[in-house]
Amino acid sequence: MEQSYNSVLLDSAVAELSKLPGIGHKTALRLALHLLRKEPEISYALGNSIIQMRRGVSYCPKCHNISEGGVCAICSDTHRDPTTVCVVENVKDVITIERTHEHHGLYHVLGGLISPLDGIAPSDLEIDSLVKRVDEDGIHEVILALSPTMEGDTTNFYIYRKLSDLPVKVTMLARGVSIGNELEYTDELTLGRSILNRTLFSANNVK
Amino acid sequence: MEQSYNSVLLDSAVAELSKLPGIGHKTALRLALHLLRKEPEISYALGNSIIQMRRGVSYCPKCHNISEGGVCAICSDTHRDPTTVCVVENVKDVITIERTHEHHGLYHVLGGLISPLDGIAPSDLEIDSLVKRVDEDGIHEVILALSPTMEGDTTNFYIYRKLSDLPVKVTMLARGVSIGNELEYTDELTLGRSILNRTLFSANNVK
Repeated sequence: MEQSYNSVLLDSAVAELSKLPGIGHKTALRLALHLLRKEPEISYALGNSIIQMRRGVSYCPKCHNISEGGVCAICSDTHRDPTTVCVVENVKDVITIERTHEHHGLYHVLGGLISPLDGIAPSDLEIDSLVKRVDEDGIHEVILALSPTMEGDTTNFYIYRKLSDLPVKVTMLARGVSIGNELEYTDELTLGRSILNRTLFSANNVK
Repeated sequence: MEQSYNSVLLDSAVAELSKLPGIGHKTALRLALHLLRKEPEISYALGNSIIQMRRGVSYCPKCHNISEGGVCAICSDTHRDPTTVCVVENVKDVITIERTHEHHGLYHVLGGLISPLDGIAPSDLEIDSLVKRVDEDGIHEVILALSPTMEGDTTNFYIYRKLSDLPVKVTMLARGVSIGNELEYTDELTLGRSILNRTLFSANNVK
């Protein structure tokens, strides 16, 4: 603890809050003093919700998304197509894709991307479990939904090779100009690729 | 709760975190997922420190600074000068002034500044208790250490008038050019005042 605010309890709360990413000592103090000004119930609810979340949330043994014990809500939803699996980097990307309402299959959370610079090897990620799942669960299509970055593409390519011996269709997110963006501000690489990979005009795609 | 992340516990922690000032829904989700990735002990320590702080920290009945029950550590420190009281806006300013190590007396926390625009009247602040304290506790000097803003000056003037009948010296923070700043970037009002209120040259002041 860096400095004393004349209260060990305040010092301790500030120290714990400043362990959060993006929250420095000054912000932590501001948050703590805010909580002291508000009704006690707000602090109790915040503290308890953090403790209960950490105690109760675990990871789905099948797709590695968050779950409250056992197989997650998505994997156990019988209305979803269990033969299509969307591969994502992390739990946040599951939430992002769910918001589009365009994916009706299941997920597989890798837990990161292959990145030699950051020391992340394929064995650190849930890739073997993906291959096993495709092999054993009768999956027809794997949608690679990783970020269009160098790490994402490296990981895409690695998974594609790992799955090449299995009877599964491997697809990836379409790449091209962003809807609603001025063409003038689209980067040259994306624009060039979207010319090369142009699609047949269809009224459905421009609605 | 705005949206479901497939976990009621996560939803609830995100909802509570996003009640904090300056923390929106996205940041709250990022913090919650960070806690889920780290060891459980970090979440337990954070949650418990917030609850314990809110339960244990109260306000000093004498100076209204934070305290852990009863009179605060500063008021009960017999090494400090009980005849000099520094008037500040809030608890944070006590910490700021303590860091300078230049004030050896006690404090009086107003809990805000007079601001008709924000609906803060003198009666909402700890001004009457200050006058009572000066009258009863044999205080020799009141240092007004409020922000040099319109609200601060209004409050300064109000307190000055309230204390005018009592045998107490009322002082205020020196105003002038900031140490270490280029003169070129000092605002004209401050620079003009610092010429009008110039002090005798002294080697102590320019060390």
